[in-house]
Amino acid sequence: MSTPVASTDRQALWKQEMDKARLRDANFTTISGTPLAPVYGPADGEQDPDENLGLPGQYPYTRGVHPSMYRGRLWTMRQFAGFGAAHETNQRFQFLLKAGQTGLSVAFDFPTLMGYDSDDEISAGEVGQVGVSISSLRDMEALFEGIPMDQVSTSMTINGPAPIMLAFYIACAEKKGIDPKALRGTIQNDILKEYQAQHAWLVPPEPALRMITDVMAYCTEHVPQWNTISISGYHIREAGSTAAQELAFTLANGMEYIRRGVAVGLDVDDFAPRLSFFFDSHLDFFEEIAKFRAARRIWARKMREEFGAKDPRSWMLRFHTQTAGVSLTAQQPENNIVRTAFEALAAVLGGTQSLHTNSMDETLSLPTEKAVKIALRTQQILAEETEVAHVADPLGGSYFVEAQTNRLEAEAEKYFQEIEARGGVVPSIMNGFFQLEIHKSAVKYQRAIEKGEKRVVGVNCYVEDDGGPTIDIHRIRSETEVEAREAMARLRSERDPQAVERELTAIRTACHAGGNLLERFIAAAHAECTLGEIAQVLREEFGQFQEPKIL
Amino acid sequence: MSTPVASTDRQALWKQEMDKARLRDANFTTISGTPLAPVYGPADGEQDPDENLGLPGQYPYTRGVHPSMYRGRLWTMRQFAGFGAAHETNQRFQFLLKAGQTGLSVAFDFPTLMGYDSDDEISAGEVGQVGVSISSLRDMEALFEGIPMDQVSTSMTINGPAPIMLAFYIACAEKKGIDPKALRGTIQNDILKEYQAQHAWLVPPEPALRMITDVMAYCTEHVPQWNTISISGYHIREAGSTAAQELAFTLANGMEYIRRGVAVGLDVDDFAPRLSFFFDSHLDFFEEIAKFRAARRIWARKMREEFGAKDPRSWMLRFHTQTAGVSLTAQQPENNIVRTAFEALAAVLGGTQSLHTNSMDETLSLPTEKAVKIALRTQQILAEETEVAHVADPLGGSYFVEAQTNRLEAEAEKYFQEIEARGGVVPSIMNGFFQLEIHKSAVKYQRAIEKGEKRVVGVNCYVEDDGGPTIDIHRIRSETEVEAREAMARLRSERDPQAVERELTAIRTACHAGGNLLERFIAAAHAECTLGEIAQVLREEFGQFQEPKIL
Repeated sequence: MSTPVASTDRQALWKQEMDKARLRDANFTTISGTPLAPVYGPADGEQDPDENLGLPGQYPYTRGVHPSMYRGRLWTMRQFAGFGAAHETNQRFQFLLKAGQTGLSVAFDFPTLMGYDSDDEISAGEVGQVGVSISSLRDMEALFEGIPMDQVSTSMTINGPAPIMLAFYIACAEKKGIDPKALRGTIQNDILKEYQAQHAWLVPPEPALRMITDVMAYCTEHVPQWNTISISGYHIREAGSTAAQELAFTLANGMEYIRRGVAVGLDVDDFAPRLSFFFDSHLDFFEEIAKFRAARRIWARKMREEFGAKDPRSWMLRFHTQTAGVSLTAQQPENNIVRTAFEALAAVLGGTQSLHTNSMDETLSLPTEKAVKIALRTQQILAEETEVAHVADPLGGSYFVEAQTNRLEAEAEKYFQEIEARGGVVPSIMNGFFQLEIHKSAVKYQRAIEKGEKRVVGVNCYVEDDGGPTIDIHRIRSETEVEAREAMARLRSERDPQAVERELTAIRTACHAGGNLLERFIAAAHAECTLGEIAQVLREEFGQFQEPKIL
Repeated sequence: MSTPVASTDRQALWKQEMDKARLRDANFTTISGTPLAPVYGPADGEQDPDENLGLPGQYPYTRGVHPSMYRGRLWTMRQFAGFGAAHETNQRFQFLLKAGQTGLSVAFDFPTLMGYDSDDEISAGEVGQVGVSISSLRDMEALFEGIPMDQVSTSMTINGPAPIMLAFYIACAEKKGIDPKALRGTIQNDILKEYQAQHAWLVPPEPALRMITDVMAYCTEHVPQWNTISISGYHIREAGSTAAQELAFTLANGMEYIRRGVAVGLDVDDFAPRLSFFFDSHLDFFEEIAKFRAARRIWARKMREEFGAKDPRSWMLRFHTQTAGVSLTAQQPENNIVRTAFEALAAVLGGTQSLHTNSMDETLSLPTEKAVKIALRTQQILAEETEVAHVADPLGGSYFVEAQTNRLEAEAEKYFQEIEARGGVVPSIMNGFFQLEIHKSAVKYQRAIEKGEKRVVGVNCYVEDDGGPTIDIHRIRSETEVEAREAMARLRSERDPQAVERELTAIRTACHAGGNLLERFIAAAHAECTLGEIAQVLREEFGQFQEPKIL
């Protein structure tokens, strides 16, 4: 047997050799720019696993929110989809469900996201382009034609007009005779990150937050299985933030929603279990895994220690993940299959509850059926063939991953203090703090690519002059917009104009007199008020958000 | 702050909840059939990291063979390629070097692998089909036309006739005026696994092993940068073995080569540093990473403790990896891009020195340029974009991975004892032990697929009736074989028949009288003796191997 060598001697020896070693000309940092050590050892790893890791399903949930993790249930495979008119997206949904997808996820077009009807002048040229156009209860009914809304879980990515869209969804279920208590799914409804990164707001922060607490209050009572906000780091990250910023800003937003709910008199344990999160899975494999683990631990601690939540379900951070759209390249699009595969694996090793894998052609167009199927197959191969779903938190204990988890937790904590010092989340939005921080990170990353310090295959290395992509592209039918206008004209002529007027006035009154706005929106949906009409009332009553200048 | 909860209480709580949990209907085992725990904790991880892990570049090399690992140099990206005639494969080589590949790897056709010339009757219909046809020094010269043999490292996958092919390679360099001391690369030359799994032998084990020690002796002196054997688990695994069998049988073969070298009077530290290894990277992500780590630790311990090697380079297990051909499916071939990406990541996290990533179309044909480029890009994205190359052994310390590493080491040790109890490697080949063990594992895995216990996307789940592959297929030119016959006829008419006769006779004599056979083969190559002629002498003098019946 060999003689054991003391750890310190080994370390000294290794350091000696490293000092002599010739290294490649590369930046040995995370994709977020954090320098990394060449190796991590026992001294860098988690020193108090009982306190900081625990077991899966146990506080502080570092190792996952369920005791059995994916042995109990696999993550939900949920491909974000939407284009053209509602009936066209309905066909894609049917295709995806047939291909083995386990949840639906609706992508809306720009007009819908901004609260305008498909026949509004402002919508011209954009109807159905980047998502589906939904302007009314009728559109929602066409979207879910033949789909059992009480059996499938649905995610809707919309924010400014989220309460209105949720009203269409609930009204649609009610019309089908489905009890809203049976509805499962998520509406993004995360307005704070819109001001910080994504820019699809309807009204200023304070009235927007009031609508969100109305949603939380209404759903707690009437739609108890619905996730009322999907607090989203995805857009913060896609706008160019670092992993630490994505983590910190998203959790800060989450805590702000908690404070708002408590402030209107809700019991934290009544609504916190229905908040979920949505993160990006970017290309830095280990930083992302550490980010997901840190997110769970931070949230659990905040909820229990700071907000006094007693229900373990309030402590658990459950999250959806989407692979990083910004990491994909228009060049050599098949390479995106590879990127997405690595990102999907990181999400699963990080313990995600649901996952969208981007299609290889998403930088070029909305995905084709072929591309979206390969993306879905990526998840199925992960689940069935790589055997990674058998063991909860398989990287737990890794010196490197634990060190990164602790590092990200500490960086997030620093941001929380800074936000608090600036008066909280809304004041920090108003003075452009988040926006500037994200902007600085985005610029730094772009410069690294331009200087070739950060290499991207097909973009600044292994470039090919191949005359453009050789894959099929999904085209939106040019008739979509004309048909949408015709449908809106029919709707406006067939509905009861007095009922419309009555419901819009009721909303106008409730904006100032109080009362639950979601309840009003549902009534308006049944009266066939349109998205644009309701949004216009809100814009008129609540005013416009003035974006702060950050540079 | 929360009160720390004792580890044992946490464990008891977790167990209680797991006992209540409803689990999916799935086999929670590795792909090799080893049951896994639902979670691994500190008690399962490495208890003595100083003794069993150390640091990268330090005995027992569990964490990698270089102190700086990929910070010093990335793994070699080496795509196995070969088809048609030598000049056609030469073009593919030029394409790959231009696309950023960093080493060459030659795939030979069946006749070449079995030691037959392209104009032999037995070769009809097979010339250039699954690899390149090389029958003579002239063919080798055409293969490396315009390629700087002193600057590029070359791997040649051939076994039975390996010493003859190496002679062609050395003679080719000599003819170009390149000193063989400048040649870098690897010849597979691993005959033991041919009897165990791959079936491309020329002569029985004992004379085959004598030729291998001749290669080791010759190269130690004359071609010192050449890896004389690539001890290969790949074919053992592809034949259906488990990960533990691949590990154990490959290392047992390695130790047998060491014993043979020592037995003919070589100093272990003179030839052991030039032995390298070749493993499969299969789909079970964590089992594969653990396998690579266990392989390094076992080899280091055996070499130092059992074989008394003093040179650290003798202790270091360096290895090439190929992603698992058997894991790919003919159905939905693009899914293979995903599988290969996961397997490549496992190889890199396991610390491989070089890597071949399979192309998506390899189950259908030899790869097209497009498919082989996506496979190469997979490695480049791993290297440049995922940031996984910055930190050595990033999974070190993971409770799960360390437990699997220890488990595989223990399973290998058990096999070593069993092989020794059966009289060693050659007797265990003669009585079919390896062959039967592999066969049993292969049958077990096949049955699991047939019964649906093991699910494979596109094969027994998510099956599509899509009328066959929709990707382009590489076709071998039908003229290749005719042209090869014509070239051989020219060669036979142009060379000096007396020189040919003289060199073949010298080989025949050396078979029994002793003397270094590789030295003789090089002389024969210069005299333009063909592969088939030299192999025929060996077959006549050394006889044929009789395969044992195992069932």
